[in-house]
Amino acid sequence: MSNLPDCQTLLLEQHNGVLHLTLNRPQSRNAMSLQMVAELRAVFAAVREDRSVRALVIGGAGGHFCAGADIKDMANARAEGSDAYRDLNRAFGALLQEVQHAPQVVISVLQGAVLGGGFGLACVSDVALTDHQAQFGLPETSLGLLPAQIAPFVVQRIGLTQARRLALTAARFDGVQAKRLGLVHFVEHDPQALAERLEEVLAHVLCCAPEANALTKKLLLASAGEPADALLDQAAQWFSDAVKGDEGVEGTLAFVQKRKPGWAP
Amino acid sequence: MSNLPDCQTLLLEQHNGVLHLTLNRPQSRNAMSLQMVAELRAVFAAVREDRSVRALVIGGAGGHFCAGADIKDMANARAEGSDAYRDLNRAFGALLQEVQHAPQVVISVLQGAVLGGGFGLACVSDVALTDHQAQFGLPETSLGLLPAQIAPFVVQRIGLTQARRLALTAARFDGVQAKRLGLVHFVEHDPQALAERLEEVLAHVLCCAPEANALTKKLLLASAGEPADALLDQAAQWFSDAVKGDEGVEGTLAFVQKRKPGWAP
Amino acid sequence: MSNLPDCQTLLLEQHNGVLHLTLNRPQSRNAMSLQMVAELRAVFAAVREDRSVRALVIGGAGGHFCAGADIKDMANARAEGSDAYRDLNRAFGALLQEVQHAPQVVISVLQGAVLGGGFGLACVSDVALTDHQAQFGLPETSLGLLPAQIAPFVVQRIGLTQARRLALTAARFDGVQAKRLGLVHFVEHDPQALAERLEEVLAHVLCCAPEANALTKKLLLASAGEPADALLDQAAQWFSDAVKGDEGVEGTLAFVQKRKPGWAP
Repeated sequence: MSNLPDCQTLLLEQHNGVLHLTLNRPQSRNAMSLQMVAELRAVFAAVREDRSVRALVIGGAGGHFCAGADIKDMANARAEGSDAYRDLNRAFGALLQEVQHAPQVVISVLQGAVLGGGFGLACVSDVALTDHQAQFGLPETSLGLLPAQIAPFVVQRIGLTQARRLALTAARFDGVQAKRLGLVHFVEHDPQALAERLEEVLAHVLCCAPEANALTKKLLLASAGEPADALLDQAAQWFSDAVKGDEGVEGTLAFVQKRKPGWAP
Repeated sequence: MSNLPDCQTLLLEQHNGVLHLTLNRPQSRNAMSLQMVAELRAVFAAVREDRSVRALVIGGAGGHFCAGADIKDMANARAEGSDAYRDLNRAFGALLQEVQHAPQVVISVLQGAVLGGGFGLACVSDVALTDHQAQFGLPETSLGLLPAQIAPFVVQRIGLTQARRLALTAARFDGVQAKRLGLVHFVEHDPQALAERLEEVLAHVLCCAPEANALTKKLLLASAGEPADALLDQAAQWFSDAVKGDEGVEGTLAFVQKRKPGWAP
Repeated sequence: MSNLPDCQTLLLEQHNGVLHLTLNRPQSRNAMSLQMVAELRAVFAAVREDRSVRALVIGGAGGHFCAGADIKDMANARAEGSDAYRDLNRAFGALLQEVQHAPQVVISVLQGAVLGGGFGLACVSDVALTDHQAQFGLPETSLGLLPAQIAPFVVQRIGLTQARRLALTAARFDGVQAKRLGLVHFVEHDPQALAERLEEVLAHVLCCAPEANALTKKLLLASAGEPADALLDQAAQWFSDAVKGDEGVEGTLAFVQKRKPGWAP
């Protein structure tokens, strides 16, 4: 059993070689706060060399997976000054890179909101299971912002052809469509079926040798050509510029005021 | 409103932030003449820095999208000498690169013939809509020629696995299959449905902030690893060699004479 | 007609510009022995410059395509010493690279077992046809081994998203799912339908000019970004380490003893 860090935003449960992580900020649909990013990174670092942890299952409390970035962190970053947005954005990208490269098999269990950062997290899981009614989407550009750290992982997950439509129309879609797009591997129609599918996947994972799986995953990722640090750094800078620019200011204000932004028909 | 160049081969119509381009050589099923390539490039250049133009819709007049290269240009190039084929081919590839990198959202509306160069143009659109009866295909190698500038964009659009079957069997297929192959995003069964889908897509695009969308598109393309200039230059040379070689001479002659080429069973 | 090498493990038949290769070790479900790898490489080398051979059809004798590596070769390699596993593994990867780059159109006809190395061979065919009941799978990590030379070609064939699930769960699936995953192009429900589909595909291939097809294939592969030699060399070393390590020893022993390995629940 790994020695795990104390977490305020995550529930952790370990048994039979599987670590279950539950994003646990249900009051904000598990929005990805800076603290949650830091705690997830600490947990993944803590188990990294531990082959007795063979699978990591990420889900969300209260019927949602993750609704994206946290509005309060954004407001704080505005107060802190010019580099805060960039750093906040890049830290989330670092989390995505670290989950992507976890030697364990990472399984995401998706339901409710799977938006923005939650969408990105789904994109770096080895096996993704979803409820048919989950709501997926990349709403960033409709708010005058960019899916900056997420876009490269979406392209890798489902290819440029689908990614460009989704990102440039801020599309919303459900679990059935997520399966058709190749974003997830399994779609189920009730919680019972979702739980059974998870058990089935875990049983298969546990039949595979831990070190052989870790090396195979490394080989698959090396074969795939992944988002480069330089691109993610650049994206964080563009994100920061966008938040502070005319569109970002208008888009986030319109969101808070529950009105359409100036560019919408 | 952008100041648009005069065009003989295109119909242009601008309203509500959308520029509609109609390929307009219906007598030749909108075959992509050198003049049409030049006019399309001029239009995309004219609107490039204009964020008031937020979407570009490309369709064809007379029930077809585009049937491929123009036979007359090919004949003229034969008269002009050794570099003309290469330059003609490469100019079309430059158009594909420029459409791919347009900061606006590019939407293609496909019907009738979507062959060769028309197929290539569909491959660089952000959102592709098709009629279910449209006829897609890469007939080049059945004529002793190469889909030279097009092949790299087809690989990027639908992946190597599907591209190799289509190109090496000169396959023909309809809009329903184009959707299954991931070449297009929407297939519709009548003109009314196609028009309604276009309105829906445009409404979503216009809800996205223009500059945020332009930067997001740039980020997606940078993530995807695109056809390199060097490869497209090489392909243009191979195209030129093929046209002038035994297979190209026999294939185009057989086509004009409405007979099978020597290599066909 | 090409001058073909004598083969013990392959049946060869040439007619009408098509060379049919049948993997012929039915007693071991056509397991890919070192000798078979060498003979396949010799045949592909012999026809490489011969444009009168326009398509290569690979199938298996006795109702199976290929069940993977040969156990006897593995045992011999154990006797031979430290580099033998690595060399054996890398030789198979070289075969995959050579089949991938054959100037002819390569068609695989899949039935029964399509496992490990057989799966890899399917991944480098231009057109893949399968029986609906064929059994596909990457069982390596369940034996404590790696799909070392195969994994990079699987990623290229069906993308990282599907490859990671299949490899890290040692998944088994049938021909219908293989079509859905984009691994094969056609699935048929009986031998007659499979034979008819093959005839149809060959008829289309033979309508395409041989040199134009060869150059187009080269262009498609250059567009796609393929597995690098360095990665395949590295993978062969990892394979060798895995076979000799604790997991590989336990996994192969458990397989022979028809029991679960120590890591399985």
